Amino acid sequence: MDTGRNGPVAVVGGGSMGVGWAIVFARSGREVRVHDAAPAVRSAVLGAVAERLAALAAHDLLSEAPGVVMARITVAETVGAAIAGAVHVQENVPERLDLKTQVFRAMDAVAAPEAVLASSTSSLPASEFAAALPGRARCLVAHPANPPHLLPIVEIVPAPFTDPEAVERTRALMAQAGQVPVVLQREVNGFIYNRLQGAVLREAYWMLEQGIADVASIDRVMTSGLGLRWSIIGPFETADLNYQGGLEEHARRMGERYRQMGAERGQPDGWDETLVARAAAERRALLPLEDWGARVAWRDERLMKARAAERESPPYTASGENTAAGGLREGA
Amino acid sequence: MDTGRNGPVAVVGGGSMGVGWAIVFARSGREVRVHDAAPAVRSAVLGAVAERLAALAAHDLLSEAPGVVMARITVAETVGAAIAGAVHVQENVPERLDLKTQVFRAMDAVAAPEAVLASSTSSLPASEFAAALPGRARCLVAHPANPPHLLPIVEIVPAPFTDPEAVERTRALMAQAGQVPVVLQREVNGFIYNRLQGAVLREAYWMLEQGIADVASIDRVMTSGLGLRWSIIGPFETADLNYQGGLEEHARRMGERYRQMGAERGQPDGWDETLVARAAAERRALLPLEDWGARVAWRDERLMKARAAERESPPYTASGENTAAGGLREGA
Repeated sequence: MDTGRNGPVAVVGGGSMGVGWAIVFARSGREVRVHDAAPAVRSAVLGAVAERLAALAAHDLLSEAPGVVMARITVAETVGAAIAGAVHVQENVPERLDLKTQVFRAMDAVAAPEAVLASSTSSLPASEFAAALPGRARCLVAHPANPPHLLPIVEIVPAPFTDPEAVERTRALMAQAGQVPVVLQREVNGFIYNRLQGAVLREAYWMLEQGIADVASIDRVMTSGLGLRWSIIGPFETADLNYQGGLEEHARRMGERYRQMGAERGQPDGWDETLVARAAAERRALLPLEDWGARVAWRDERLMKARAAERESPPYTASGENTAAGGLREGA
Repeated sequence: MDTGRNGPVAVVGGGSMGVGWAIVFARSGREVRVHDAAPAVRSAVLGAVAERLAALAAHDLLSEAPGVVMARITVAETVGAAIAGAVHVQENVPERLDLKTQVFRAMDAVAAPEAVLASSTSSLPASEFAAALPGRARCLVAHPANPPHLLPIVEIVPAPFTDPEAVERTRALMAQAGQVPVVLQREVNGFIYNRLQGAVLREAYWMLEQGIADVASIDRVMTSGLGLRWSIIGPFETADLNYQGGLEEHARRMGERYRQMGAERGQPDGWDETLVARAAAERRALLPLEDWGARVAWRDERLMKARAAERESPPYTASGENTAAGGLREGA
């Protein structure tokens, strides 16, 4: 079995997520075997793959012909056939604990000892569905965004029993596949991705409830402002670049105001000086203050590229009355 | 005085925000007069404008030659000279209540009766600095993102005493200038933009404090996942498109999990069925369920455009050691 750079990958669960993962691995040169328990899903996999590959090729986002990538993907009738010889197994069955537990038990029984078993779950930590398995040390979560072939982030979340080598092999495999792996130091409800998303959704629903603005307006503030910038720099770097002097200056000027916004909803947690100093030290290791201006200029270059791409994008046309739908630009 | 589509605009405060605003209004065909109390700032305005216009032209984001846009911008030695004949005044002085109060008093004394006086403040409601003015009915907040010439969102926030006609004229002026105006129904601490930003920053600092991940990892989850998608669809539409069945199905499947993520930090507010039904009804007015699949396909088209633009963007090069700085992609 080839456990190295080119070993085959199994995808268990052939819905939209599974199709996205199959493309991610196949376009990086790996053989991919996809299994789904439902025959109807199995027979739809290759058509869905072909459709998405054609779209990627149309945007010049594939380095090979779609047929070449396609040829690396096969559909397996059984879990065993999909997993045999795989160096990595990516599971995408529905988000139910009983199902994940059962599927991981089956996968652990047939997978080669060196294979990593990774779940795409967005909310169930591996310690809840893999703790009882003989091979639990090679089990972990590798949570993608939706859709995984277009959004590169992958959260790798080890359980307390996960072997650090399985974490490192998954990180390397995802990076080699062109994804952006991030390793969490420990399990936490929602991981990073859905904790940030939950914080935004709770605030958005609260503003709707308070009659501050409607759904379309709140969405528009995100797409035409915050989200556009967050697609280029994250929340810490955004704060770091918003004030000359960086993150510490941001906390001095804005910290109390942000604390109040939480406090008036019953959540008074802010950030104290020690925590800000720690975050600022990490930022300074990434970006010395003498390079601050250059990084702001880089941010603006990236924003201009994004605006140009947006302008060239096709408008949404499924329904003629929906041109003001959230996410579409007005007047720009 | 031309109060119509082509009337001149005054920009009071000539720092980075003022320069951005001057470009926004001038590229839409308006005459712009910029004033700053500091002579050194005044003499730097036109150079800063020229530099940003050249960058916009290089990205093919100007519909006219930079010199043509530039010729519409002049620097005024006094507030009075800037404001005389202006149909709209955009104030950008430092974020201090005493200063805003003083500048609005001066502006209200000299502006034509029809002129709207708008503050770029990100946190001070107009009722705090304009309540005592004879012309308070034409005072409001028009809060841009940073930088305003690249991020189109503008939050228009009326005080209780603001004339609805001043709100409507500001909305129309911003839309005509190619910005994306959003009108808030009432004043609230942080407006929409910084409430969403504050929710994310508080959650991000909490995760750092809890040792879940470092600053760079948290930022990367945003840039390579959430932010990339939020640059195209906002939080409500994201939830709406993540589950067949839309926002109500999202709430059924994920509502309790998101509520728990808040509750374990002492903030148990979730969203009840009535609120979800209201949000879902607004979404269905924007996007009938029968168009759901077409809108998902549109989202993916936009994501592919964004990924292609990202790939063509210049890497950050100010410091050779910073290629792993937050916001940069690894391995993609």
